Amino acid sequence: MALDIVIMAAGKGTRMKSARPKVLHTLAGRALLQHVLDTAAGLGAQRLITVTGHGADLVERAMRAALPEAPLHFVRQEPQLGTGHAVQQAVPALGEQGTTLILNGDVPLVRAETARALLAACGGERLALLTVQLADPTGYGRIVRDASGERVLAIVEHKDASEAQRAIREGYTGMMAVPTAMLRRWLAALRNDNAQQEYYLTDIVAMAEADGVPVVATLAGSETEVLGVNSPLQLADLERRHQRQVADALMEAGVRLADPARLDVRGALTCGRDVAIDVNCVFEGTVALGDDVSIGANCVIRNASIAAGAVIHPFTHIDGEALGVTVGEGSLIGPFARLRPGATLGAGVHIGNFVEVKNSTLADGAKANHLAYLGDATVGERVNYGAGSITANYDGANKHRTVIGADVHVGSNCVLIAPITIGEGATIGGGSTLGKDAPAGQLTVARAKQLSLAGWKRPVKAPKAG
Amino acid sequence: MALDIVIMAAGKGTRMKSARPKVLHTLAGRALLQHVLDTAAGLGAQRLITVTGHGADLVERAMRAALPEAPLHFVRQEPQLGTGHAVQQAVPALGEQGTTLILNGDVPLVRAETARALLAACGGERLALLTVQLADPTGYGRIVRDASGERVLAIVEHKDASEAQRAIREGYTGMMAVPTAMLRRWLAALRNDNAQQEYYLTDIVAMAEADGVPVVATLAGSETEVLGVNSPLQLADLERRHQRQVADALMEAGVRLADPARLDVRGALTCGRDVAIDVNCVFEGTVALGDDVSIGANCVIRNASIAAGAVIHPFTHIDGEALGVTVGEGSLIGPFARLRPGATLGAGVHIGNFVEVKNSTLADGAKANHLAYLGDATVGERVNYGAGSITANYDGANKHRTVIGADVHVGSNCVLIAPITIGEGATIGGGSTLGKDAPAGQLTVARAKQLSLAGWKRPVKAPKAG
Amino acid sequence: MALDIVIMAAGKGTRMKSARPKVLHTLAGRALLQHVLDTAAGLGAQRLITVTGHGADLVERAMRAALPEAPLHFVRQEPQLGTGHAVQQAVPALGEQGTTLILNGDVPLVRAETARALLAACGGERLALLTVQLADPTGYGRIVRDASGERVLAIVEHKDASEAQRAIREGYTGMMAVPTAMLRRWLAALRNDNAQQEYYLTDIVAMAEADGVPVVATLAGSETEVLGVNSPLQLADLERRHQRQVADALMEAGVRLADPARLDVRGALTCGRDVAIDVNCVFEGTVALGDDVSIGANCVIRNASIAAGAVIHPFTHIDGEALGVTVGEGSLIGPFARLRPGATLGAGVHIGNFVEVKNSTLADGAKANHLAYLGDATVGERVNYGAGSITANYDGANKHRTVIGADVHVGSNCVLIAPITIGEGATIGGGSTLGKDAPAGQLTVARAKQLSLAGWKRPVKAPKAG
Repeated sequence: MALDIVIMAAGKGTRMKSARPKVLHTLAGRALLQHVLDTAAGLGAQRLITVTGHGADLVERAMRAALPEAPLHFVRQEPQLGTGHAVQQAVPALGEQGTTLILNGDVPLVRAETARALLAACGGERLALLTVQLADPTGYGRIVRDASGERVLAIVEHKDASEAQRAIREGYTGMMAVPTAMLRRWLAALRNDNAQQEYYLTDIVAMAEADGVPVVATLAGSETEVLGVNSPLQLADLERRHQRQVADALMEAGVRLADPARLDVRGALTCGRDVAIDVNCVFEGTVALGDDVSIGANCVIRNASIAAGAVIHPFTHIDGEALGVTVGEGSLIGPFARLRPGATLGAGVHIGNFVEVKNSTLADGAKANHLAYLGDATVGERVNYGAGSITANYDGANKHRTVIGADVHVGSNCVLIAPITIGEGATIGGGSTLGKDAPAGQLTVARAKQLSLAGWKRPVKAPKAG
Repeated sequence: MALDIVIMAAGKGTRMKSARPKVLHTLAGRALLQHVLDTAAGLGAQRLITVTGHGADLVERAMRAALPEAPLHFVRQEPQLGTGHAVQQAVPALGEQGTTLILNGDVPLVRAETARALLAACGGERLALLTVQLADPTGYGRIVRDASGERVLAIVEHKDASEAQRAIREGYTGMMAVPTAMLRRWLAALRNDNAQQEYYLTDIVAMAEADGVPVVATLAGSETEVLGVNSPLQLADLERRHQRQVADALMEAGVRLADPARLDVRGALTCGRDVAIDVNCVFEGTVALGDDVSIGANCVIRNASIAAGAVIHPFTHIDGEALGVTVGEGSLIGPFARLRPGATLGAGVHIGNFVEVKNSTLADGAKANHLAYLGDATVGERVNYGAGSITANYDGANKHRTVIGADVHVGSNCVLIAPITIGEGATIGGGSTLGKDAPAGQLTVARAKQLSLAGWKRPVKAPKAG
Repeated sequence: MALDIVIMAAGKGTRMKSARPKVLHTLAGRALLQHVLDTAAGLGAQRLITVTGHGADLVERAMRAALPEAPLHFVRQEPQLGTGHAVQQAVPALGEQGTTLILNGDVPLVRAETARALLAACGGERLALLTVQLADPTGYGRIVRDASGERVLAIVEHKDASEAQRAIREGYTGMMAVPTAMLRRWLAALRNDNAQQEYYLTDIVAMAEADGVPVVATLAGSETEVLGVNSPLQLADLERRHQRQVADALMEAGVRLADPARLDVRGALTCGRDVAIDVNCVFEGTVALGDDVSIGANCVIRNASIAAGAVIHPFTHIDGEALGVTVGEGSLIGPFARLRPGATLGAGVHIGNFVEVKNSTLADGAKANHLAYLGDATVGERVNYGAGSITANYDGANKHRTVIGADVHVGSNCVLIAPITIGEGATIGGGSTLGKDAPAGQLTVARAKQLSLAGWKRPVKAPKAG
């Protein structure tokens, strides 16, 4: 059965008080609309038709960038004259036959499983509404079912509902699946002779009734998956609900979380067996943690792969950006370490406090434990890179590489001016600034003579002016 | 109508288990009593009369320092013989006519709006009680109203209440507004012939009744604004309620919070449009964030102004103390950066990891990206300040300035011994310690010759003593 | 009365999805089983008999290491044929007379006080069950009491319970106290003629009834102390309940917490008067905080003693491991400081940002404020240790000490190559690398001559290859 999906994303979102179109606000690091499109893309539709309006150019550009492979179509709704009017704009893009699924661009957490159940309920011949059981249905249109409970008789707006109808806890979510041919016919018949002079999509329920087309309802699995975002408060609330779901799923898979309420995953976090994550960590992009990995409190990790048995101490900041970061088996990182794009660490590497590593490869067993910078470096096995030492990789115009052979010991507060090669097994004396290569196996130093001045007097505190 | 405000602040707060007087404990960074005085100061009273007792000297000194402009008066209550006795001490300081508003120094969140409603209810001729609807009124004095609901008949203590009275959910908050002349008369008539031998302020309700003075009640807007603090647990509970209110107000104004439960604002935080604040941030003192500012996870920011488009990465610590910190438009700060008092950064400045800036001005486009210290420095446009470089601003007795001209490149691990001037466009070779000025446009270095020792042997591990 | 305690710890904990035996998973930093054994060890039992099964070797080794002094006995249950079968394995290790207390190795928070009440209820002659009032008893065996409420008639499994029995909110916790002689007899009579073919310990309730032995119940103080751990979700939930209890107890004792929901104590935290702890701190091992100590946001502190009046700024990481860390009175530490094992700081010491101290003693008033490393050093009073300075304590094979006399000033970016002694009152010029001792009172420098090259040209950006 041919499927088209229409996603309503034209609204301004005035209550967001933002220059950004509402559907580009992010939940768990992705735009609201991208969540919906990602889900929709998994349903096998022939077209994903997004109805844009406010900030349409921005929205379209952002989504084309985010989903370059998806069959995205965009239609504009200008001005915005109601939900029925929004779907009307999509009509020319719809297929002739088949089913149309209507989703909301500001309802990010609807699940593919729920959409599939809704499509099954439609079955190409019924009008299927997605509904939800609400703890507090205030403000929602109520679903009035027939005596059998099988068929929907009407959606009654909150303001029009009788006392008995207000007691109904089943509300309409704004999402539906409709046989496309019927949708075309009903949309064409919509009228705006109401107080707001808008075209309401829900008016097609009465048309279906009138046409003898069964109207059915599919219940969403939870409120969370049908909640829309209209304000920063609702966005934050939905973010926390989503994060709690993510935390629960991780725990269900065996991950041990010190506090499920203090975990933020914005992207895809995959975990091996016996992974433990301490309080207040943030994961972004694609992060893979191997078996027995331990993540300390207050870590921020993005686009990184951390192998089995690695220990990430508290206050570690890892951001692989586009290049990624790789941490090898059993490595020890932090506290207060920063791994930047292209940091590629072998097994048993130690990166200690106040150490930054960027675009550098460290072979197995290499160590940089204190106050150091490794940028654009290739570091051999078992190298000990001293406290305070720096690869001077930038000459003010270009970046150059530092190559440090296996078993090198670099002393403290050294400067290695790239391009430079330190031969295998070399030792570099503390405080040396090297502008030339250092031979393998030898001690290389660049150090001034130590002198003491007996007669010297320390400065004394200047009297205050005045 | 002349207004006097009496604030009861004599209690010891035994359950706080603290050497500090209770009203000096802080909520959101301000003493409990200061919250009340700040609110009271906005009501236009001729006098703010605080009744002190335990730790009176400390309390009075702290409040005079915190509110140097306010019409503060202090009276002592020693010993403490009840709420009525407390207000009796204030009588000599009250005006002859007008209204007296009685507040509690340990109820910090009462709103000016509520106080104004209470004063309006008093109208200079009624006894007006501030009351509150309570989810659980246990322990509160219940408000018994007459059949019309307009007038209060009595406050019945919890222990004296009948079953029917205990079902009343309206409780007395301890705050009231009273015509001053009546207050004088009633206070003079208070007796302490009760079990505790105390003078109870609430006894004036019966006197008003007896005198035919109407007793009326004004409901507070929420429990939160009338909650008192008697223990660290209550203090923490009220802190979280307050912080949630602050978070809600920020979101209402359009600020996007990753987690409203993990935000702490202790002072005044003002935000432009499209500000985003990640989890677990703390703001103290006066902080202003411009449009599109992004604050990463785990930042602590105090007394700072951050201009539009600046990005503050995670783990950034900014504390302007008295001097303030300024971050220019589009600057990038952190992660693991520390900006201290007098750090004044232009537009597009980059301050990277493990970098400290104190009492220094950085012009547009200047960068200090790695492991560096800038103290008492004036840094020109587009300067690149190398990794590990230090301004040696302190000679053990006095602080001196470092002046770095525009377009200077300072290499890695340099020491600039102040006072020193680096001329425009100069380049300082890595590893140089400079004690004299460096000329503009030239390369200046101070570097020992690099030598390698072929015959040198590395130390070997000493055998364990045994 | 002789007491034996049997702790059931043979289960695999399949839902933990872990390679680790369930009872070795940690809550508040201690294994679940260790919590139970620690509590049991305080009850004066002659033997603590743990029934192990899955991962028995690991469990036994871990517990012997954790409680070297306790009278630990281990018996194996292989295969696992039910709770009755588990206790049967312990029979040979039980005393002839006295009482047996049966606890669960995966119910970590049961209190000694509750166990004592249960033993008192047993009194050496009754079968005493530990029960609990449950908000939601679903899944629990219900306690059916007689008309008087004094005696227990039966434990009815949830699946076998009538509607009326399901309304009972008192559930069985799995813990009991039994006269040992009766326990032997009843265990010997257990049968496994049920669907699971298991031996159920609870079958002894009917045997006691049949023998005319009174069955009584003792209510646990809260659900929390009887909750078991079967999944990471339950573990996290119990961790948060426990942490909240710890926070409440600290506040009850006068400690001020900025957010009780964001505190983690994994071990023993003792606090003096007027201690304040900001948000998101983690304490591990044994930590003692003196009067008026202030702990900033986001600190991680383990095995340390911090004296009165010390201020620990945000983002401070202290880990004393086995050696401990000592911070003296009125010291100021952080932000972004790291104190490692053997850091022993006197009064009024300042350790600033990006400074690491390991196995070093700093006398009163010493300061290391910026970007520095002190390892294996002895630092005198009032020493000022400059920004970027490093003790080069490791020659690649051995560690050596640095001794810095009182009133020494070490400049910026110095390297002190240990073993080395800097005499009292010496000044070390910025940028010096010292390989020999520096005499007291003198200025010692090792610095290359400063040269400027007028004709030098900066590198220019290389054209892109292509």
